[in-house]
Amino acid sequence: MTSPERRFVISLGCPDATGIVARIGAFIADAGGWIVEAGYHTDPDTGWFFTRQEIRADSLPFDVDELRRRFSSVAEELGSRTSWRVWDTAQRRRVVILASKEGHCLHDLLGRIGSGELDVDLGAVISNHERLGPITRAHGVPFHHVPFPSDPEGKSAAFEQVRELAEKHDPHAIVLARFMQVLPPDLCERWLGRAINIHHSFLPSFAGARPYHQAYERGVKLVGATCHYVTAELDAGPIVEQDVMRVDHADAVPDMVRKGRDLEKLVLARGLRWHLEDRVLVYGKRTVVF
Amino acid sequence: MTSPERRFVISLGCPDATGIVARIGAFIADAGGWIVEAGYHTDPDTGWFFTRQEIRADSLPFDVDELRRRFSSVAEELGSRTSWRVWDTAQRRRVVILASKEGHCLHDLLGRIGSGELDVDLGAVISNHERLGPITRAHGVPFHHVPFPSDPEGKSAAFEQVRELAEKHDPHAIVLARFMQVLPPDLCERWLGRAINIHHSFLPSFAGARPYHQAYERGVKLVGATCHYVTAELDAGPIVEQDVMRVDHADAVPDMVRKGRDLEKLVLARGLRWHLEDRVLVYGKRTVVF
Amino acid sequence: MTSPERRFVISLGCPDATGIVARIGAFIADAGGWIVEAGYHTDPDTGWFFTRQEIRADSLPFDVDELRRRFSSVAEELGSRTSWRVWDTAQRRRVVILASKEGHCLHDLLGRIGSGELDVDLGAVISNHERLGPITRAHGVPFHHVPFPSDPEGKSAAFEQVRELAEKHDPHAIVLARFMQVLPPDLCERWLGRAINIHHSFLPSFAGARPYHQAYERGVKLVGATCHYVTAELDAGPIVEQDVMRVDHADAVPDMVRKGRDLEKLVLARGLRWHLEDRVLVYGKRTVVF
Amino acid sequence: MTSPERRFVISLGCPDATGIVARIGAFIADAGGWIVEAGYHTDPDTGWFFTRQEIRADSLPFDVDELRRRFSSVAEELGSRTSWRVWDTAQRRRVVILASKEGHCLHDLLGRIGSGELDVDLGAVISNHERLGPITRAHGVPFHHVPFPSDPEGKSAAFEQVRELAEKHDPHAIVLARFMQVLPPDLCERWLGRAINIHHSFLPSFAGARPYHQAYERGVKLVGATCHYVTAELDAGPIVEQDVMRVDHADAVPDMVRKGRDLEKLVLARGLRWHLEDRVLVYGKRTVVF
Repeated sequence: MTSPERRFVISLGCPDATGIVARIGAFIADAGGWIVEAGYHTDPDTGWFFTRQEIRADSLPFDVDELRRRFSSVAEELGSRTSWRVWDTAQRRRVVILASKEGHCLHDLLGRIGSGELDVDLGAVISNHERLGPITRAHGVPFHHVPFPSDPEGKSAAFEQVRELAEKHDPHAIVLARFMQVLPPDLCERWLGRAINIHHSFLPSFAGARPYHQAYERGVKLVGATCHYVTAELDAGPIVEQDVMRVDHADAVPDMVRKGRDLEKLVLARGLRWHLEDRVLVYGKRTVVF
Repeated sequence: MTSPERRFVISLGCPDATGIVARIGAFIADAGGWIVEAGYHTDPDTGWFFTRQEIRADSLPFDVDELRRRFSSVAEELGSRTSWRVWDTAQRRRVVILASKEGHCLHDLLGRIGSGELDVDLGAVISNHERLGPITRAHGVPFHHVPFPSDPEGKSAAFEQVRELAEKHDPHAIVLARFMQVLPPDLCERWLGRAINIHHSFLPSFAGARPYHQAYERGVKLVGATCHYVTAELDAGPIVEQDVMRVDHADAVPDMVRKGRDLEKLVLARGLRWHLEDRVLVYGKRTVVF
Repeated sequence: MTSPERRFVISLGCPDATGIVARIGAFIADAGGWIVEAGYHTDPDTGWFFTRQEIRADSLPFDVDELRRRFSSVAEELGSRTSWRVWDTAQRRRVVILASKEGHCLHDLLGRIGSGELDVDLGAVISNHERLGPITRAHGVPFHHVPFPSDPEGKSAAFEQVRELAEKHDPHAIVLARFMQVLPPDLCERWLGRAINIHHSFLPSFAGARPYHQAYERGVKLVGATCHYVTAELDAGPIVEQDVMRVDHADAVPDMVRKGRDLEKLVLARGLRWHLEDRVLVYGKRTVVF
Repeated sequence: MTSPERRFVISLGCPDATGIVARIGAFIADAGGWIVEAGYHTDPDTGWFFTRQEIRADSLPFDVDELRRRFSSVAEELGSRTSWRVWDTAQRRRVVILASKEGHCLHDLLGRIGSGELDVDLGAVISNHERLGPITRAHGVPFHHVPFPSDPEGKSAAFEQVRELAEKHDPHAIVLARFMQVLPPDLCERWLGRAINIHHSFLPSFAGARPYHQAYERGVKLVGATCHYVTAELDAGPIVEQDVMRVDHADAVPDMVRKGRDLEKLVLARGLRWHLEDRVLVYGKRTVVF
């Protein structure tokens, strides 16, 4: 995303076998492709192979659609019908953010977008509270307030409204930036692999509500944050990134909350960047992050 | 600053001797003071003693001026004529930020102030470029553009203008948030202990210009950032906070720059918080951070 | 323990009240005591106060027994009948280690003792396997092999033998250095506050058996280690120290095991040092570590 | 080294060009080779390409000598006459350690070798002091005491003796485990790429003598350790690994020394492992670590 030069990025998962590297390498070399970054991984448990390759766009004599068309035969040959993607870095990523009252993650993402560090199209911020409207609009981003009633029907209708507002942008990522509402299972399913959440604990410890309180009561010496894909099982989706920060006995819950915010911002920003750069390949509950 | 309750904070440095803890403890106890946080340190090399104490304001039968008046005799008794301070957390800190074109540190501080995490009066942002004006004003903060010509006289006049604009706010902290201009010696002297800078390296390595380039050329495996008080000797002032981040051979200079921004933001924000909470006591080139 | 000079160390927990710091400070000052390190903490939830003070032994006109006698009235006055201790750093700590087949923690502790870094009397190493006998004896430390049968009676008798062998040394710490046997409840009770364990995960995640396998299956991005006091509830005792280390998709379980060993060694060594230096005060499931 | 299965490891540096990955991939695939780990890196500044590949030995129909013979044509084709290597993990690495009086790094390496974590042939420990003889011999390793006089001739003769003792083992690594003597230029040249040192600072800060004292005086908030190849310029060789650890105002020099030991042990052990596993490729002052 900060690449000064345009690149085509191939990501693929397929059953492991001898000669995959050579097959893909030959495909790229035959087209004159200049590989500027390449990652490979074999998972011995599942016998699955993963790769991600960045090719200089100007080294290829055709455009990304043609690359996609040609590569589809290679992928099929390798037994990967659906688990491959080709991305042209010149095609900007579209993002929608869901937020609530807590603004630190939103402020951080807006700052990264505003300073050009995160070069994406932020289509909208949707929130169940008004509070973050002014700062969102000050960044020139549309803000939608969707109140969430506490009754199931009202909530269901609110989620339907969120869905519509979000999907209008055909987003590559729907970011739950401390959204505080549990997505209904059908939305989890619908947005699988695109809805990305930040949870304020080092999962699997302290899933669910009030993780800093849980951490305080258990007396841990580090608190953490986890960026993960949203699945129907709460806080149990594939983990993209995690980090921790030291606390000690002098840190009461409000101190943990304050310190933890910096973690949440960093971990979410890193996870989101990797997701948008097609660096994350999911298999089961695990992720390869190239 | 995030303390829910009002506190009086005493900070003191004095020659070490037997009975200092008892003397201060008795002074506070005699007034009925409830100590909620206390730090002590003796530096064996210099024979100097340091302490910082947070007292619940509502546990004392008098206000902060009276506390200051009474404590001054204790401080004098202990041989500390000038190196002590008393701060009432209800008195909000005043801050001025100097910036240039790079916005990440400014965005971060504005976000922290906007979300209420950093509860200060930001009087003004002063910059030698226009670029950060809109976002500053969107946060409701006055922005002053002071162009810096390259000739010595022009530069000198520009600094004089910066000085006037900054001092109008009688700031507790003048934050050089990637300001990129070297303060003249007289301003360093004048703002000693109040001008706080973020340098994008793990000092003393890579002082001066283009530290990420220097780091890249040396082939280090971690890059860092340093928050320090500004002194006349470039990048050599007392260090308040530092941190590092892992890089590897795949990280070219632009990657270091991008990753390093997160470090700079965090390290500056932590250092500034500690400075404003009167947690930092300087002695020579070293600091005690309670 | 590495202090070049002899010190008397007071640790105390008591109900919080105004004037405790002054009371203890006056007690020490009246005796001419020179405080070289002091820590204070108030837990707002429980209303309990904690302190630890290091006093230069040569600054007091009496020995440690007299200090203990005199301080007992202060402690009683402050409502702390049993939760205070006075330690003379000239009295070397006695340690017993329980090990099994995995040698890395034992090797590490023997190395620290052998190089003088950890200045303790290691009375014995007790193991349910022979394997670590030679290296233990090469360090001049008695090694006892106590086989653990799988039947309950045999196991019970084995634990009785371990108890006798350990208690002969009247140890300040019984270190479970990857002992792999679950202490029976009566022994947990008997050794409460002295039995210290290293668990190879970032608790409370992955308690119980095969934590690295659990971590691998969950796909976490960091693995950890936890040093905690042993209680009857498995892996749920008060935590003394924790740390983590980054892993990625390329790390299979054996890599996690290998990398994790370094963590286990460090975390156990730090936790043990703090325990032996009387820096750890337990309250409920939490610890203050001064 | 902890690989359960035998592998052949190819490391190569060559001028970057289109098709290298395909060329090497085809070579391996044509022989039926099963790649279990692969790393690639292109350095844009120097236009140099680097790769390291691990192939399951039992997937190839020939032995390592034949692999080396065949690969040499590929390497030549790619313009890499001398900067490639093929290693058979079944061929154990030979190591010689140079030590002085400080035992922590030696204890640590002996422990890792003794517990089987580091599966190497430790041919000898050579020291200018007697102190570490007993523990070395207790591990069944030959120990040579070579006294170092202070006069140049005596020192020169001592180095000649060290050279002979070391080279008798034809070592893949000569480890300066806090050796404290500066290797003469001719020995640096002779052992280039094999002599590996641990320096107790975060280089390039605090090169030379007494780095912890330098760090203390500068008032840094983190101390570090650096594992690097030895070159004629003191503490300026290519860096293999670095790490840091937080210190604060309460840490005097002896505390830094004590805490730093853990860093030195870890950083040296990691650097040595990577070197022995042929993961480190040097170019200029920089290293690729796969």
